[in-house]
Amino acid sequence: MFDRPEILMTPGPTPVPHFVLEAQAAPLVYHRGPGYGALLDEAVDGIKWLIQTDSDVVVYTSSGSGGMEGAVANTVSAGDKVLVVSVGFFGERFKTICERFGCDVTVIDYEWGNTAKAADVEKALDDDPGITHVFCQHSETSTGVVNDVEPIARAVRARDKLFILDAVSSAGAVDIEMDEWGIDVCIGGSQKALGATPGIAFCAVGPRAWEAHKVSTAPRFYFDWTAYKEAMERPDSESPWTPAISVLQGMVAALRVARDEGREGILERHKLLSRAIKAGVQALGLPLMGEDPERAVVVTAVKNPPGLTDKQIVGLLRSKYGIIVAPGQGPMKGQVFRIGHLGWFEPLDILRFFGALELVLDELGYELTPGAGVAAAEAVFKG
Amino acid sequence: MFDRPEILMTPGPTPVPHFVLEAQAAPLVYHRGPGYGALLDEAVDGIKWLIQTDSDVVVYTSSGSGGMEGAVANTVSAGDKVLVVSVGFFGERFKTICERFGCDVTVIDYEWGNTAKAADVEKALDDDPGITHVFCQHSETSTGVVNDVEPIARAVRARDKLFILDAVSSAGAVDIEMDEWGIDVCIGGSQKALGATPGIAFCAVGPRAWEAHKVSTAPRFYFDWTAYKEAMERPDSESPWTPAISVLQGMVAALRVARDEGREGILERHKLLSRAIKAGVQALGLPLMGEDPERAVVVTAVKNPPGLTDKQIVGLLRSKYGIIVAPGQGPMKGQVFRIGHLGWFEPLDILRFFGALELVLDELGYELTPGAGVAAAEAVFKG
Repeated sequence: MFDRPEILMTPGPTPVPHFVLEAQAAPLVYHRGPGYGALLDEAVDGIKWLIQTDSDVVVYTSSGSGGMEGAVANTVSAGDKVLVVSVGFFGERFKTICERFGCDVTVIDYEWGNTAKAADVEKALDDDPGITHVFCQHSETSTGVVNDVEPIARAVRARDKLFILDAVSSAGAVDIEMDEWGIDVCIGGSQKALGATPGIAFCAVGPRAWEAHKVSTAPRFYFDWTAYKEAMERPDSESPWTPAISVLQGMVAALRVARDEGREGILERHKLLSRAIKAGVQALGLPLMGEDPERAVVVTAVKNPPGLTDKQIVGLLRSKYGIIVAPGQGPMKGQVFRIGHLGWFEPLDILRFFGALELVLDELGYELTPGAGVAAAEAVFKG
Repeated sequence: MFDRPEILMTPGPTPVPHFVLEAQAAPLVYHRGPGYGALLDEAVDGIKWLIQTDSDVVVYTSSGSGGMEGAVANTVSAGDKVLVVSVGFFGERFKTICERFGCDVTVIDYEWGNTAKAADVEKALDDDPGITHVFCQHSETSTGVVNDVEPIARAVRARDKLFILDAVSSAGAVDIEMDEWGIDVCIGGSQKALGATPGIAFCAVGPRAWEAHKVSTAPRFYFDWTAYKEAMERPDSESPWTPAISVLQGMVAALRVARDEGREGILERHKLLSRAIKAGVQALGLPLMGEDPERAVVVTAVKNPPGLTDKQIVGLLRSKYGIIVAPGQGPMKGQVFRIGHLGWFEPLDILRFFGALELVLDELGYELTPGAGVAAAEAVFKG
């Protein structure tokens, strides 16, 4: 048959809507002088709106991992005691970055699929009062786990430690009340729930994080918050180094549409689609992975049916139907496949997906009732 | 009159050709699995071709300054003695980055407008044999200076030191023979001579730089070469962190067209346009800045006519004719304006520019013979 663009149902990048593609194919706004300042300010305002904060926002040209490095390098000094709350692959990444910058790292290392608990964080902080920073993922795409971060943030704030949240894959998909919950640094990116293309990351930096920044001695240049703050304070807001202008143009277009839909609307849509995915998967007899799948509104991790591998399912979905889902990562390799449903998705995308999944599972010899997955998802949408 | 897109004649970003815009507005290639590997490999092959090297190439999602940090953070350890050859703004940036990473920095600090000399580098290295690294710009856009780096690179190699070249604004505009001249690290970017949009930088890393990398202890994560090398060695070449896929798609489209034009063709075109710019500027009675303007094939820095400021000229060119040139930077503020002619330009773009410049200078009260700049440029093109 004819070639059509592949459909991204991965943990990111996510489907890029036409208005984002158009905005990033438009002539470049020059980044020194009027025009860019308005673009950057609109991006910053949109991010503040999305994660509910009055904090400053530092906009990087980098992947989300660059944002993670920025959050570490701007707040720590070698020898600092830090706590990493790890529920999977990206928790391990926080650990690695903190170690690279010479921190003394304690890790609460949850089994993959489990969700972080505020009580464990409280205990770790009370056991070692020398710990000054807590790093945590909101959404951990390697397992689908979405941590309930509000009580964790509150526990950390109550002990006067710094709370740094990786919200790269949650911002715009899961509620984040940065100021209300007491998050000091919130990290996000362009290519997840917003549906822009990868290349922009951000750190929202609260007042206590700025205080930590002042005394932090970790070596840094490209990600140095002070450089960004000074550039933003010029008469036309600027970026200190030449930014990924086209990506930012796309991200601002995405934020405009997000604001039209409304924060509540976006969050409810993500919950609805996630429920439909879970219903369809279970109707096909496939078990969900994880302790608390109801919270997993970003990515759904599904255990492989007996006798089938994630490689087979992922491979056939892509080669035959052009739908890209992700295989298991780390210790979950060979155990699960992961369906991304964050970003620019609506009900028909989910039904289309189940059509393809049913055909693939059938072709691989798995016994199912054709239409059962689609019907279960339809039932969710009918309400 | 109607609005048309502004015309970038800055030191970068440069005009983005339609095939780049189309490529970056095309559906995203997913960065894990087949497809992206071919895209990344093509980018790497194109870069190797452009700067004439068999070295490995590390492709970053960042600005050129990220590439500069990468070259420092991957080769130095705190306490290393390094030499920075500075002919302007970006030389100062190298100094800053090296200092941030704890180096003991010696600077050869040329007056802005002057060109680096191999003899000075030789003397500095012979005066302090403890120096292990030499950092230098090829093209310094703050002054237009293009250093003659071949003899500098050879002098550094003869003394068995590491030579790190910032070629961000020269790669694709000025001849670079990385391997032949003995450059150990060559840094470039997407948004200059290639005409892609900003967001991608690269370090080409020669064998001696890999040796330096092995013993370097500077803290690094996002820019760590080993992570990129390992990711590129996977069955489908990958980037370690989610890359700016759309920008890379555009850059690969630009590299294809560059290879069609041919390296010699591109370099000759840049020389021709530069000669036309210089001829037109001088025909209008405006003096060129710098010791060796004939070499300045990337950016032409022009001294302000008596009584006029760069701010006035730059401002009116933009507000009335939509052409963006750059004002003076650093100590050159108020002294010069800078015309970028690197990238996707051809003769008619230069004639159009002189039409606008003549109108602007005339409106600002400068006495000139209308058409004189255009005619002088035409004479260059007639050969």
